[in-house]
This record gives sequence, C-alpha cells and structure tokens, in this order.
Amino acid sequence: MAVGESHFPIMPRIDGVRLGTAMAGIKKPGRRDLVVIEVAEGASVAGTFTRNAFCAAPVHVAKEHLGQGDAVRYLVINTGNANAGTGETGMRDARASCAALAELAGVAPETVLPFSTGVIGEPLPMDRLVAGLPQALEALGDDQQAWQLAGEGILTTDTRAKGSSRQLELAGATVTINGIAKGSGMICPNMATMLGFVATDAAIDQALLARILRDTVRKSFNSITVDSDTSTNDACMLMATGKGPRLATDGDLAAFVAALQEVLVELAQAIIRDGEGATKFVTLDVQGATSEDEAREVAFTVAHSPLVKTALYASDANWGRILAAVGRARVDDFDVERVTIDLGEVRLVENGGRAAGYTEEAGSTVMAREEIVIRIDLGRGEEGAVIWTSDLSHDYVSINADYRS
Amino acid sequence: MAVGESHFPIMPRIDGVRLGTAMAGIKKPGRRDLVVIEVAEGASVAGTFTRNAFCAAPVHVAKEHLGQGDAVRYLVINTGNANAGTGETGMRDARASCAALAELAGVAPETVLPFSTGVIGEPLPMDRLVAGLPQALEALGDDQQAWQLAGEGILTTDTRAKGSSRQLELAGATVTINGIAKGSGMICPNMATMLGFVATDAAIDQALLARILRDTVRKSFNSITVDSDTSTNDACMLMATGKGPRLATDGDLAAFVAALQEVLVELAQAIIRDGEGATKFVTLDVQGATSEDEAREVAFTVAHSPLVKTALYASDANWGRILAAVGRARVDDFDVERVTIDLGEVRLVENGGRAAGYTEEAGSTVMAREEIVIRIDLGRGEEGAVIWTSDLSHDYVSINADYRS
Repeated sequence: MAVGESHFPIMPRIDGVRLGTAMAGIKKPGRRDLVVIEVAEGASVAGTFTRNAFCAAPVHVAKEHLGQGDAVRYLVINTGNANAGTGETGMRDARASCAALAELAGVAPETVLPFSTGVIGEPLPMDRLVAGLPQALEALGDDQQAWQLAGEGILTTDTRAKGSSRQLELAGATVTINGIAKGSGMICPNMATMLGFVATDAAIDQALLARILRDTVRKSFNSITVDSDTSTNDACMLMATGKGPRLATDGDLAAFVAALQEVLVELAQAIIRDGEGATKFVTLDVQGATSEDEAREVAFTVAHSPLVKTALYASDANWGRILAAVGRARVDDFDVERVTIDLGEVRLVENGGRAAGYTEEAGSTVMAREEIVIRIDLGRGEEGAVIWTSDLSHDYVSINADYRS
Repeated sequence: MAVGESHFPIMPRIDGVRLGTAMAGIKKPGRRDLVVIEVAEGASVAGTFTRNAFCAAPVHVAKEHLGQGDAVRYLVINTGNANAGTGETGMRDARASCAALAELAGVAPETVLPFSTGVIGEPLPMDRLVAGLPQALEALGDDQQAWQLAGEGILTTDTRAKGSSRQLELAGATVTINGIAKGSGMICPNMATMLGFVATDAAIDQALLARILRDTVRKSFNSITVDSDTSTNDACMLMATGKGPRLATDGDLAAFVAALQEVLVELAQAIIRDGEGATKFVTLDVQGATSEDEAREVAFTVAHSPLVKTALYASDANWGRILAAVGRARVDDFDVERVTIDLGEVRLVENGGRAAGYTEEAGSTVMAREEIVIRIDLGRGEEGAVIWTSDLSHDYVSINADYRS
C-alpha cells in the first residue's frame, strides 16, 4: 500500500556521475540488488549517517573512508542484507567489498564507500556480491534508465522507486541536482535517512558541501518518521562533481540550497508516502514553541503515538488522542490553555478543551482525506518545525510480522 | 485477547472500606459504570497522578481536594467518559459530581475525590451520573462481591477485572492489602497508571503513605507500557484506614512495603496481560547500566519499538530489531562491544554482533512462548530496571481503529 500516485521523474544527465546495477542474488535471485555509483575524479562528497550505536559495518567503513580525505570515486550499495549486527566478520566483509570493486576499477580501496540495507544480523553473501560487481560496472551509464534502475536497485520493502530532480541557472549555466532514496520501515532517521544518494554537477568544496547537507537533511530526512525505529544503516550522501558552475556568490549558494532542500524534502516525503502499510500522508506543523527542538519533540510525540496513528488509519476524528499525545510530550511548564490544535481547516482544541465551533462532521470530513495536516500552536514562543508521518494500519503489522518469512 | 488465565482473587474484608456500584448508563445502558468507594473517618489517603499536561478535570479536582488536608471520605469513579479535554465545563462537572455525592452522604464536597476514564473530549453526562449515585451508595459493602463488582465497574476496553490481595502479620495482628486496577490501552503511565485503587487496614500517616506509594508505583505501574501513550487520567490511590495495627518498627514497614509492592506489581502485570490485543507478556530486564534511569530508557525504547512488538506478535526471533532498538536508546558513549542480549535462556548478542552459539531454532523456541523474558546487559555499571510490555497485534489495530464506533 502507498499514498497517492507516483512517477519516477525525468533525471537529466549529471556530468561526472554514472550509475550501474546488477542482479547479484544477495537475498533471492532475479532482483536488482547491487548498485555502483561512480563519481569523477575531483568531486566533493559529503555524508550524514545514523546515530544508532549498533550502526552497521558499512557505516563504520564509509565514515572511515570519507574521513581520510582521499577523493571518493565509487559507492557500492547492496540491498537484501544490512551487514549490521555482524561484528568483526561484517567489518571484514565491508572492507572486502570496497577492495573487490577497487581492484576491478583500478582505484584505491579507500576511494570506495560501502552501503548495505536489508535484514540485520545475517552475514553478507560475499561471493555473490563480488560476482555481481563486473556486471554493475559494465552497466555504468548516466541516462534516465541508469538513474531509474539505481533507484529500483536500492529498495527493500519499498513498493516504488523514489527520485527527485531540480535544475537552476547559476552564472548563466545550468546546475542539475538529482537524488534517489529508499526507505519504508524502520524509519525515524537521526542524522540521515535509510539511504539517500544525491548528486549535482555544481562545484562545491567539501567543507561547505558537508554543512549544506547537514542543514538540509535536518528539514527533510530527519523530519520524517514511519515507526520511530532509527535504523542501523541510515546514510545520505551528497556528491558534487564540479563539472558545472561554481557557487560564486551568497545568492548562488542560497538558490542552490533552496533547490537541494526541495529535492531532499521530495525524497523524504516519498519515503513516508511509501511507508510500510501507509494509507495516509500526514503533515505535523508545530508552531509557537520556544525552540525548534521543543517543536520537534511535540511533533514526534504525536507522530509516534500508536493511538493517533490508528485513529488516522480509521479516518476517525478522535482528536482526544492528539491532545493526549501533545500533553505527554517532554515540554516543561506547559500551559494547555494557550494551545490550539487544527485538523486541516477545522479548529479542534482551544482553551484547554474542545473548540467551541467544532463538530464531529467537520472533523470527519478532514480525516477522510488521504493527505492530512495537523497544526499545533503551543502559544509560548516564535519557533516551529514541520515533520511528516504515516498511519498505523493492519498492513503495517502484516508486513512486519511476516517480513523474514 | 489476553495473555494467560485470570481469576479474580479472594479479597478479605478491610475494616473501614466499603464499595458500591451502579449501572448509570454513562456511555451505554446495562453496564456497571459507576463506583463509589467509602473510607472511614480518620483514614490516610495518598495518590499519584498522570504527568500529562492535558490532564483531565477530575485529576485536577482530585489533586486539589487531596491537597487541602481534609480527610478523604469518598472516591467516585465513572467509566465510559474521561472528562478530559473538556475545559471549564469539565472542571464544573467534576466538582458537581463531588458535591452531589457529598450531599447524599452528608459530608463536605472537599472530602470527595473524582475519577473518570473512557473517551476523551465528550462532556460528562451529569444527569445520568448523578442519578446513579443513590444506587451506588445503597450498594456499599465490604465483602468479596463488593470488591469484585468494583473491579468490574472501572473497566473500559479491558477484557477482565484485575485484583490483587496480600495479608501479613504485624505485631500479632493481621494486616490486609486489597487492590483493583483497570487499564488496557493508552498505557505508559508516568506517575501512576490508568486507575488503581488500593486499600489497607494498617495505620500509616499520610506523609509516610505518600512516600511508600511513590516508591512502589515506580516499580509497578510506572514500569509498564502497552503503547507508549501516557493517559490524561492516570491515577493510583492508596488508602490506609488505620483500623488495623500501626507500622511500629522499620521491620514492620519493610514487610508492609514488600507486600504492597507485590500487590501493585500483580495489578500492573495484569494490565499488561490484558493489554489491547496482547498475545504475549514480555519482561524486559536491563542490567549493567550506570543508573536506573539509563536502564529504564533502554528498556522502554525496546518496549516501544513497533518492529520489536510486531516480531514478538509473529513469534519471530528477529533479534536484529532488538539490537537496533537498544542502539537507538538515548545513552551517551555506548560501547556495543560490551552489550549482551539474551532471549530467555538463549544468548542472542555479544561482542557487537550475533552470539557465537546462536541458532535460529533456539531463538524460535523461546519466541513461540506466551511469556518471554528479554535480558539486556549494558556492561557499563551496576544499576538495572525491570519493565513489562505486550506485543503489537492485528487486534491492537482493530481495537483502536474501531474504538469509538
């Protein structure tokens, strides 16, 4: 199940980026499950990674290789196996994946970053992965098909490939930003999402690129939740090949960041629309907070509430559950008299209780929609945050009760 | 659905406590939904209440009346309507309930404490509630039937009445502790549970009683979670009539607290066994923490994980989900190499990954059980905590997607 229509977008070529895929049979045969991304020499690459303490072996190795300052040339991504909870064997396997690709491509192993997603705790089937690499390298291309197959090749329980693209004019030249992402369950990114790969031909130094990524990830991948479970493998990579124009002015930078933010938000929202068992796409807009963190605490408390999520699934305007969730958020000296809660265009709560003009009929009309906005004003400050989430359906339970079988 | 067998226990008389019930038709007719508890003059009463900022009107009024130092004489409890999110009207109704009972019983309104549980946000049907009070007063009694009917009269989505009783000998006399509780969904108490009423004939001063209650509630009602949603109406009341022996020595106190702790744990566990849609009763035992709070943070993070809960429902030994949940708990400087995780008698995780001797078959054998113990040792300190939770089943979604219809 998934919310709304979905079409993989047109992805213009990005000079300096090629993508290749293979069917390596990592978990089962006949499935595109191995992706290689090549970036041109001299490209800048930045990444954000999960904060889960049990982070996966490839996360350790990717951070290590990214941190050595050597230019990154290849990303190798497998689905079907997370290579997490695999201890020393997992670390060896992640390094061996890099080494195998490096040898075939004639580069140093430290210029390869590994990524894995799938079941936790199983050893990575190295023979099959390594055997699939030549096919992926041979398939390297930069056209629409290459981007779309890569978008498909990183999926797990996702039901659709997720892509987003923007172009903008900077200093008389066209800059392109393309991104693909995957994620459907175990989604409550902290630092980054499941997996996101975004590339541009703009020229941006590594330090600036890292800062831009951190800022834009916070308001995109780090602002979504399906089920509150932060994965062991989350990573989002931003690659700037430098084949296009350099960001020369503050105006250029602002325009680029705005376009990049759109790409990341579109990808993050696509993950929610394709959330496991999702039948609703819900925007939580919390304002009037004393800090952005406070607004996010309230928003995520509501978004994680199983009772709110099941009411959304049932299209039941059971606003008392929203109120109860707001009330249990970790906020000090909370004055409920100042809080207002709106469901779409309908005021639910004011003055500590049900809004005067509220009718069940009005609430139900909004709840019946596939896309729902819940606005919460805490009435105590000027800060705010917007996050996105899905509902909790029978399909979510079925998908996760049956996932390994 | 519920886990295991259940029998309402034998409840000996407690001198100074009487209970009466009525069918007031609060939400629908033909259901026992109004309970009055009478305590003798001179009794000590202590209470713990929800920390939800949107706490219900009766919680405000009960705290206010309890805080005025007047002896408490009556508790009036309705189910079917939480009188929460009801603003000024709700406060008026809660006070009016006390006043109506006070007038019938010939006591001051401030000696009555009100409690409500049920749907949030609907006005309390005062006419029906007030009309039911004479019947409840007339039914006041102290025998087995009175306790059992009161246990039934406070239920909402619960499938069974929950009671617990202990007797101990102090200074040559018998002290009795009886308790009843309700709760099935919106269960993640913070300060107290949904509703718990515990009485003893021991003589204990109010200040000591309050301290004993706070300590014992932490390791019982505040150590359970069904769905992470802290209710607006949680309250646990402890009444000591003073008709029996006084706690004279430290030994008496310790013996009494131990017996009380057993009663509260039994009631709290009964709530989990009857958790909405529960098919499993799960004990999370976290040790080796630097503080009890740290141990509780890890335990609750695992207990709230929808992915862990659906794996428990499916009897799937998907231990990677437990590892991922432990890894995302808010613990600083977490060294995963030192963590061990055991499922029943089977070691799952050590040295940062799957334990050497682990087999899928061994894990599945434990997961197939109705009662499961998950032991997590963080290997970084001497503190620990034990909490109890249930699984996330299709029935949980059905119950909460259909609750109001």
